[in-house]
Amino acid sequence: MSLLKQQTYQPLTETAAIKLALSLNIFTNSAELTCKEIGDGNLNLVFHIVDEKNKKSIIIKQALPYAKVVGESWPLTLKRAKIEADALKTFGEIAPNYVPKVYYTDDVLAVTVMEDLSHLSIARTGFIKGETYPLISQHLGEFLAKTLFYTSDYGLGPGAKKARVHQFINPELCKITEDLIFTDPFYDAETNNFEAGLRGAVEGLWQDEELKLQVNILKKAFLTDSEVLLHGDLHTGSIFADNSETKVIDPEFAFYGPAGFDIAQVFANLLFQVIVNVPNRETFINHIETVWNVFEEEYTHLWEIENKEPLAKTAEFLKFNLSKFFEDAIGFAGCELIRRTIGLAHVADLDSIENEHVRLAAKQKTLELGKALIKLRKETKNLATFFETVKTVLE
Amino acid sequence: MSLLKQQTYQPLTETAAIKLALSLNIFTNSAELTCKEIGDGNLNLVFHIVDEKNKKSIIIKQALPYAKVVGESWPLTLKRAKIEADALKTFGEIAPNYVPKVYYTDDVLAVTVMEDLSHLSIARTGFIKGETYPLISQHLGEFLAKTLFYTSDYGLGPGAKKARVHQFINPELCKITEDLIFTDPFYDAETNNFEAGLRGAVEGLWQDEELKLQVNILKKAFLTDSEVLLHGDLHTGSIFADNSETKVIDPEFAFYGPAGFDIAQVFANLLFQVIVNVPNRETFINHIETVWNVFEEEYTHLWEIENKEPLAKTAEFLKFNLSKFFEDAIGFAGCELIRRTIGLAHVADLDSIENEHVRLAAKQKTLELGKALIKLRKETKNLATFFETVKTVLE
Repeated sequence: MSLLKQQTYQPLTETAAIKLALSLNIFTNSAELTCKEIGDGNLNLVFHIVDEKNKKSIIIKQALPYAKVVGESWPLTLKRAKIEADALKTFGEIAPNYVPKVYYTDDVLAVTVMEDLSHLSIARTGFIKGETYPLISQHLGEFLAKTLFYTSDYGLGPGAKKARVHQFINPELCKITEDLIFTDPFYDAETNNFEAGLRGAVEGLWQDEELKLQVNILKKAFLTDSEVLLHGDLHTGSIFADNSETKVIDPEFAFYGPAGFDIAQVFANLLFQVIVNVPNRETFINHIETVWNVFEEEYTHLWEIENKEPLAKTAEFLKFNLSKFFEDAIGFAGCELIRRTIGLAHVADLDSIENEHVRLAAKQKTLELGKALIKLRKETKNLATFFETVKTVLE
Repeated sequence: MSLLKQQTYQPLTETAAIKLALSLNIFTNSAELTCKEIGDGNLNLVFHIVDEKNKKSIIIKQALPYAKVVGESWPLTLKRAKIEADALKTFGEIAPNYVPKVYYTDDVLAVTVMEDLSHLSIARTGFIKGETYPLISQHLGEFLAKTLFYTSDYGLGPGAKKARVHQFINPELCKITEDLIFTDPFYDAETNNFEAGLRGAVEGLWQDEELKLQVNILKKAFLTDSEVLLHGDLHTGSIFADNSETKVIDPEFAFYGPAGFDIAQVFANLLFQVIVNVPNRETFINHIETVWNVFEEEYTHLWEIENKEPLAKTAEFLKFNLSKFFEDAIGFAGCELIRRTIGLAHVADLDSIENEHVRLAAKQKTLELGKALIKLRKETKNLATFFETVKTVLE
């Protein structure tokens, strides 16, 4: 394949994308390809290439050397395409049902050619339209158990794991998370973006010394706790789904961090639906319950049969780890709830509520719940206590 | 300097070492060099090169591609010479008073040319001879504060710190620690080496499930908690001293790990003297006290004036970190006490006691103290509680 490799980066045109697709022998000779760029243009080009005749299609994703967020543009490493492709391949070996197949990568062009998932919907968008995807929580629980076990010291062995830590050092994308989740929402930062009606609540957060201490502790875990290869951005906008399938995409934030972080993003982004989607509230509570229960059961199974550290394979040490993951997940979920309400990057679950009164009330509850989860995470030993806190805040 | 670089590794002879020294322009043209290999031949060649005429001398240290321990020989990466040289340079920028100057390094030859410290003694050897080195604890406290602050996220900033994590990934040497400190002593491993008279006590450790759980938790911190650039082997055999100077050598085990680990090695190796050196017991208790107090004071100072994370610079979060370092140090010190008594690598502090009864009693106490520190580390909030435990075990 090395003949195909470019020597210098250039953004692909639709014509160049078709040329690349043809050169990869993914399509038959009789293929008649059409190509459409379907990305939002903020971070990546996304080419959807279709052979209508043979009903075959692929995606070519290419990183852009900058990020555009709310009008601003800042340079962003192209290396993230390699991180993303490496993570997709790693997750593909571990949990092939839950990520798109990767057909080809080119580090210079920052290109990944992969399975087309356009028969599925972005989970967040589906949820907002009223979908509930009955299998999504079971699938995510299994995805989390497999990726968070098999990339750990216990699944890989400490030597192989250190090679992965080396491979996935990802300073630029981690910095985005460090700033936008753990730092900016907790002081009067320029990146923050919140409605005037929330100012009182937001200033309350900024003055809450106990909250800020706990956020410092959680940020430190994000900075130092190299437990597992994280997806790093596992919100419902990074998940494709329908009623039978679930696929996790976009792991460009992947790095070695605390296992609870990925679990937290799933919890928090399901919690947005618990908060806003009153008719389906129980369904989403059940989804959260299923994510954790399936995760716990599958992780326990892998711990017992696949553990590379013989002396670590005890029920008591497993319990220690599961408790740590849960506590971390509760705290990180609190941070995600807060930053999606008042930070730079919002969620449509909240912002798309048209009635101002209802929207502001939902955002107030989100902030209150975020704060409670961060502060109460040590006492939140299980799902029952977790849901108790959710209920208390929402009622 | 690139003309001097060799293309392939070969062990130096004394003649080749002199030739290398002459090529580096460290000595004047009038130098008359003599060279003696003074290493123990287990892991490294160490050439002592002296210009008697001008009273100048240097050390050339070269890694060997194998390790010899108790008769066995196993291959060992030459990359450790680069890790060691990089760590000496890093520590040299941060704490120049406490490490040898590095004049030259060659990654292919696995060579580091450095300051000759032969006017000093190895601290462990000095202690066993009755020396107490009045300034050693103040110097080590300062060395620990500076290295453990300036290599952290708070001293470097998260981006630069991640580059260092990448630079110091050190799987082979970490594996030695993982096995010899955290694993082998806690089951009937072939590498263990203990006197018949200790068998009862040793089997007691192997059957102590609570102890083994706590050791799993400490090992996990060693595997995952990437807080700071550790020396990684900071026992009193890696420290040169006299009554006015202290120099830390041999950081080939350097990697990013939990700050408490280096503090622990210092604590534990001073504790051996507390245990065996009854006439000087108070002096060594005072040394431990000084190490921690100087560390705490200097770390607090650096935290306040050099912190790269503005929101982290609070007294409460500093307190959280210092408590964590102390708790980790107490636990890791317990592991070091145990492994030096029954594991592969012993300490002369214990083994050189000639009277069998006295020696066995000291080793029993060491095991008992190790076990207590591991189990009680969460309750051991300060030096007073720590010394209480020491006293209780030794009385």
